[in-house]
Amino acid sequence: MSKKIIGIDLGGTSVKLAILTQEGEIQEKWSIATNILDEGSHIVPDIIESIQNKLASHGLTKDDFLGIGMGSPGVVDSKAGTVIGAYNLNWKTLQPIKEQIEGALGIPFFIDNDANVAALGERWVGAGENNPDVVFMTLGTGVGGGVIAGGNLIHGVAGAGGELGHITVDFEAPFDCTCGKKGCLETVASATGIVNLARRFADTYAGDSKLKVLVDDGQDVTAKDVFDLAKEGDALALMVYRQFAHYLGTSCANIASVLNPAYIVIGGGVSAAGEFLLDGVRKVFEENSFPQIRTSTKLSLATLGNDAGVIGAASLVL
Amino acid sequence: MSKKIIGIDLGGTSVKLAILTQEGEIQEKWSIATNILDEGSHIVPDIIESIQNKLASHGLTKDDFLGIGMGSPGVVDSKAGTVIGAYNLNWKTLQPIKEQIEGALGIPFFIDNDANVAALGERWVGAGENNPDVVFMTLGTGVGGGVIAGGNLIHGVAGAGGELGHITVDFEAPFDCTCGKKGCLETVASATGIVNLARRFADTYAGDSKLKVLVDDGQDVTAKDVFDLAKEGDALALMVYRQFAHYLGTSCANIASVLNPAYIVIGGGVSAAGEFLLDGVRKVFEENSFPQIRTSTKLSLATLGNDAGVIGAASLVL
Repeated sequence: MSKKIIGIDLGGTSVKLAILTQEGEIQEKWSIATNILDEGSHIVPDIIESIQNKLASHGLTKDDFLGIGMGSPGVVDSKAGTVIGAYNLNWKTLQPIKEQIEGALGIPFFIDNDANVAALGERWVGAGENNPDVVFMTLGTGVGGGVIAGGNLIHGVAGAGGELGHITVDFEAPFDCTCGKKGCLETVASATGIVNLARRFADTYAGDSKLKVLVDDGQDVTAKDVFDLAKEGDALALMVYRQFAHYLGTSCANIASVLNPAYIVIGGGVSAAGEFLLDGVRKVFEENSFPQIRTSTKLSLATLGNDAGVIGAASLVL
Repeated sequence: MSKKIIGIDLGGTSVKLAILTQEGEIQEKWSIATNILDEGSHIVPDIIESIQNKLASHGLTKDDFLGIGMGSPGVVDSKAGTVIGAYNLNWKTLQPIKEQIEGALGIPFFIDNDANVAALGERWVGAGENNPDVVFMTLGTGVGGGVIAGGNLIHGVAGAGGELGHITVDFEAPFDCTCGKKGCLETVASATGIVNLARRFADTYAGDSKLKVLVDDGQDVTAKDVFDLAKEGDALALMVYRQFAHYLGTSCANIASVLNPAYIVIGGGVSAAGEFLLDGVRKVFEENSFPQIRTSTKLSLATLGNDAGVIGAASLVL
């Protein structure tokens, strides 16, 4: 029997774990709550205990596993196997995770940034079709990304490769970004970014629109509301949708001019708007890309959903 | 004695050749005219003859060489060793260059796109300081580029990686680009692009300016004139310089958000404007980059000049 891999997707509310084959197939998955109390000092011991229990219940030992891979928030040093500055985990100081996990379980351990790991997952068995050149963009609360080029995950000189949410796209009326600069893709294409745009357009829009009524009413408008209304033909929602598509489509075109990837895969909660979202983005992408790129780089939706993290984490082992 | 390498930089007017050490040091260089007559059918035979003569005159044989590397215009298939569609060489049909050169000289042959090869040169012994993550941008008649990420030259799925001149930067009043789309970096940051901007600003500028007088006189204004006048404080030239710096600086910032390279190296004829050019671009770059990138990705001027091509070509052999 060929050895298995354990994939771990560490998040602020839960830790997803899975046992996978070397072909990236999930054989079993489970999750535990993330306990961020006491400066997040319970997180790694909880993970170790959960894996020990799972192995015991299945009669498995460390020799049944090729390795463990993990995706983590924060600044990850993948060589040293450490994480620092993961604020949603209360990890402010350096966490020697590789040392802790290898020490307790005796299984080789590998770690990378969570967005990078999701990119690896989508590239391996998801929309990226195992191509050596794939860019992954996740549109959630923020906008993150991961870049695989020439077969390698690109970290860059300081580990900030794939910071796609901080591509500057708006020079006219830029919103402030949490990173300290203005006009970042994240301020107009994340879940909150789309609401930013809805509020801005609602301010000056005078026509008939359900979206305008919701915003003016002070109701909690979400990105999903905006896309649902745009699908119904709501005029204000369509304005927001087109502006969003302009920013995201030009960003994709410019990424493609740099890397000419086989796929730019779009995932995260916002991408639930599906083909409707992609159609608008693709139109702008095609208008703004070099002919050779237009015919070779494809935009597609992520296919692995929540499993991208554990699958990509597992791929770190290979 | 360790084996040497031959580097070839094939251009539309001349072919530059050099014998280099495995450390990238040029031991001898020479050039021959590019004869594009008869559908460019003399080019490869001329190169072969020139190398044969050079070897004979030095008493060298094929066994003294590790390999031959070449940078070529057109669409290069580096695996097959062929070139097609190099219009400035009159090469319209597929050229089996590797087959021709290896057949005649018996030395292993490697080839890549000319901008990629210049990028490899600057990365190897030039401004890139042999870092695994370096982006090279050449501002000449057009704007070209090459991307080295994770230690590899990035070709992308269809060989269009590094098409940095076709990043879309101008959405307000975009100039048409030769590629068929509008607002490309090349239309505002190449030698001709800077003149495009000068003419545009001169049209509406009403103040005192030497540059305005030159343009209105119908004189042949060059990018060098614009930068020279900007250095002297000419108000119109400064407007052009700032707009150029805006486009190039934001492009560099956005490339850095994707790749976080150690260096973005700027070369080509326009970069002769030197530190003055770089200062303006760097200011915009810093305003538009993520803090972690701002402090780790450096902009620098190319240092190899015309030698980048033969040096980078030689590096293909290693």
